[in-house]
Amino acid sequence: MDAAARDAQGGLEWRVTVQEGASVTVEHEVGVVARAWRWLLACMAMVWSRVVGFAWKVWRIAADDPRKAVHGLKVGLALALVSVFYYTRPLYDGVGGAAMWAVMTVVVVFEYTVGGSVYKCFNRAVATASAGVLALGVHWVASKSGELEPVILSGSLFLLAAAATFSRFIPTVKARFDYGVTIFILTYSLVAVSGYRVDELAALALQRLSTVAIGIFLCLAVCVLIYPVWAGQELHHLTTRNMTKLAAAVEGCVEDYFAEEAARPAQAKSDGYKCVLNSKASEDAQANLARWEPAHGRFGFRHPYSQYAKVGASMRGCAYCLEALSSCAGAEMQAPEHVKRLLRDVCTKVGAQCARVLREASSSVATMTSSRTLDFAVADMNTAVHELQGDMRSLPSMLAVKLAETSLMDTMPLLTVASLLVEISVRIEGVVDAVDSLATLANFKQVDDDDDKKGETEMMKVHPLDEPDTDGASPENQMTRV
Amino acid sequence: MDAAARDAQGGLEWRVTVQEGASVTVEHEVGVVARAWRWLLACMAMVWSRVVGFAWKVWRIAADDPRKAVHGLKVGLALALVSVFYYTRPLYDGVGGAAMWAVMTVVVVFEYTVGGSVYKCFNRAVATASAGVLALGVHWVASKSGELEPVILSGSLFLLAAAATFSRFIPTVKARFDYGVTIFILTYSLVAVSGYRVDELAALALQRLSTVAIGIFLCLAVCVLIYPVWAGQELHHLTTRNMTKLAAAVEGCVEDYFAEEAARPAQAKSDGYKCVLNSKASEDAQANLARWEPAHGRFGFRHPYSQYAKVGASMRGCAYCLEALSSCAGAEMQAPEHVKRLLRDVCTKVGAQCARVLREASSSVATMTSSRTLDFAVADMNTAVHELQGDMRSLPSMLAVKLAETSLMDTMPLLTVASLLVEISVRIEGVVDAVDSLATLANFKQVDDDDDKKGETEMMKVHPLDEPDTDGASPENQMTRV
Repeated sequence: MDAAARDAQGGLEWRVTVQEGASVTVEHEVGVVARAWRWLLACMAMVWSRVVGFAWKVWRIAADDPRKAVHGLKVGLALALVSVFYYTRPLYDGVGGAAMWAVMTVVVVFEYTVGGSVYKCFNRAVATASAGVLALGVHWVASKSGELEPVILSGSLFLLAAAATFSRFIPTVKARFDYGVTIFILTYSLVAVSGYRVDELAALALQRLSTVAIGIFLCLAVCVLIYPVWAGQELHHLTTRNMTKLAAAVEGCVEDYFAEEAARPAQAKSDGYKCVLNSKASEDAQANLARWEPAHGRFGFRHPYSQYAKVGASMRGCAYCLEALSSCAGAEMQAPEHVKRLLRDVCTKVGAQCARVLREASSSVATMTSSRTLDFAVADMNTAVHELQGDMRSLPSMLAVKLAETSLMDTMPLLTVASLLVEISVRIEGVVDAVDSLATLANFKQVDDDDDKKGETEMMKVHPLDEPDTDGASPENQMTRV
Repeated sequence: MDAAARDAQGGLEWRVTVQEGASVTVEHEVGVVARAWRWLLACMAMVWSRVVGFAWKVWRIAADDPRKAVHGLKVGLALALVSVFYYTRPLYDGVGGAAMWAVMTVVVVFEYTVGGSVYKCFNRAVATASAGVLALGVHWVASKSGELEPVILSGSLFLLAAAATFSRFIPTVKARFDYGVTIFILTYSLVAVSGYRVDELAALALQRLSTVAIGIFLCLAVCVLIYPVWAGQELHHLTTRNMTKLAAAVEGCVEDYFAEEAARPAQAKSDGYKCVLNSKASEDAQANLARWEPAHGRFGFRHPYSQYAKVGASMRGCAYCLEALSSCAGAEMQAPEHVKRLLRDVCTKVGAQCARVLREASSSVATMTSSRTLDFAVADMNTAVHELQGDMRSLPSMLAVKLAETSLMDTMPLLTVASLLVEISVRIEGVVDAVDSLATLANFKQVDDDDDKKGETEMMKVHPLDEPDTDGASPENQMTRV
């Protein structure tokens, strides 16, 4: 693999330079010049290793998600296209110096996701038009008032800017029109104030508006037509990815807890819940932008993006409990191994069933189908939980019979883990409920698998979902999967 | 109080209109006109009630934090000042049409906090200057190449824009220079591309740079000199406020759990931990901006703002556990009251001691002093925790003696709560450790209170910290407090 080869190479270079840097030993008999030379070499080696390290990091960003590099090229392309207005005589004669506004629009409006770009384009267009009209009106009034003109213009600017700036603190405005408010103030001040010195203000405003429209058109065309990145799809993938990570983490945490001290793995698998804990901000942002996107693929016009945020919240509820559980696995006070062994099998089973439910739910969201398999998985999970509760109930008598010397206190940490596991299963049902609402709201296809087909689809489903907790999975894979 | 009076008035208006809206009863004998009239009235009443409701919400935002309204006025003032460049003949002759850039700079650079404004000003200044110089250089090269000029200009624009846009995905660049990259692309494209049509490009670039400088100067002057809002102080207050909220929540959750079913309060107090769970994004953003701020008040030049984020992370660790604890209080399966009573006193004591430690830590951060009281509080908390652990250990024998009919299963929920409480106390020690590092890094004043003074300062400290979980506390109070 290309990436692997480069990895090895990059790692080697790094190692060589570090050795060189460490080779600066103090030898008193060597002259000052030689020492200075060595010092210089060491410095250069360090700088070089830093440069290589940085380049490697940058390369990883692009290799992990080539769409980011494509986004850069798209912006470059849009700017190159818009600059044609300057180089082509007929076009330049049409718009003149106002071509500047088209360039400016492309630079500030082009966002990574289609939703982001549409949000900014819409805000910019509406704010420019409304502020322009308002400014022309105020300017007309002011021009009739003779001496008072600067006072009226400045006064209206002061009041409007203050009110508009304050309106950004209103949550609804902040979420949907934040950028529009900035552009409103900007356009109003430019038109109203510069109107004091410019004669043909209406023509100027119209020219500006038309060049802004050109910029918006170009930007949206490039953004939507060339490898578009949809905020809705990003949100969708984030949700399914987090759900499979959570599944792996539930399983991993339980396994970690019951593993022998020596055999305990390096936590990579069970750490997935941390992504879930910290994903609120990006979920909210993407749900906010996705609302601006037109229908695309299987995402309809009024796709219930806000329900994804609710699914995310229920997953975080799960992750909180999981965090407590995983800290139990790392705690000082542990139940003795022979006590742990009494609940090991049933706990592992509950963990595996919980993970299965989450994976089924994730697969249901990913494929946008709802099948009865999920309900079966929930039923199986509940059976396993009841079994665990039964075992917990009979634990004291088991202990009394088998191991008379073990005090109840020894079982405490184990019982806490078991109770947390029960609580986690309750919260996973909450996740399933949220996914069910999503299925209803988004009209997921109903897959009525009869018993013969069931086994088959299950096979198909389990396979692609065994791996995706490798995270670094390139987004193309995710795109083709959905 | 003015606000209370308006509250009552606003509430009243609302209620009146709702009654009006509900009074539309269907009376078949009444004519169509009368019905239409009523319908119209109901509609108007509804619109009016919505307007009043919205106005009331907006008023609450301003009343809760008047600095937001002041911010609006500051932006208005800065714009009115900068518009003077248009109205005053000598000034306008100096800068000409480029005055537009001063207006534009003020609009896009003015942020709520000083840190935000400095960040944007710095980025804008450096990016404008560097992109301008680079564009002039490329333009000079291109002008020597004759026919190829548009190709070189567009090609360089494409490459630079693509590279710069991609660089925004590098985390360090994103965090510190995101805005600068946008401005870099913007300036480069404007100068390089419009240079194709403009003759005195250097003069144009210089004029633009000087007007941007004027805008930056005005913006910073208004932002810093008139009621400045410091991101560092906001972060500081957010941290202490969250800590006291967490203290109230620990106490509240334990009380909720042990309260009689009927006497259970309305959760307001114990819900404070939810703010802590969701504050990561704003903490990170503020820590990021605070880095740009000059020394002010007791916040030195290199105040360790990133340590606040660590304190926040440790508090969130606490809040995760608290979330699990509070879900135990609301769970279906509960230990019987007579079993709960066995651990009630000791659990309540642990909860109170945990809250005391958090309050002491919060007060230590708020006053930027470190006193031994905190260590005493931690010691007391640990004593209480040991007592709880002892009681947990002796619970089975207590049960066996007193209440032979109670099975061990009944005690399970109670034991889970107790274990979680122990875990919470462990995590609170983590918070204290993070606060200690903060105290070291930020050189908190050492207060060596001898035993006589100790009681006194404790009295003083407990008083202001009894209330701040009212959240809506106006920020002036917080400012004067610190």
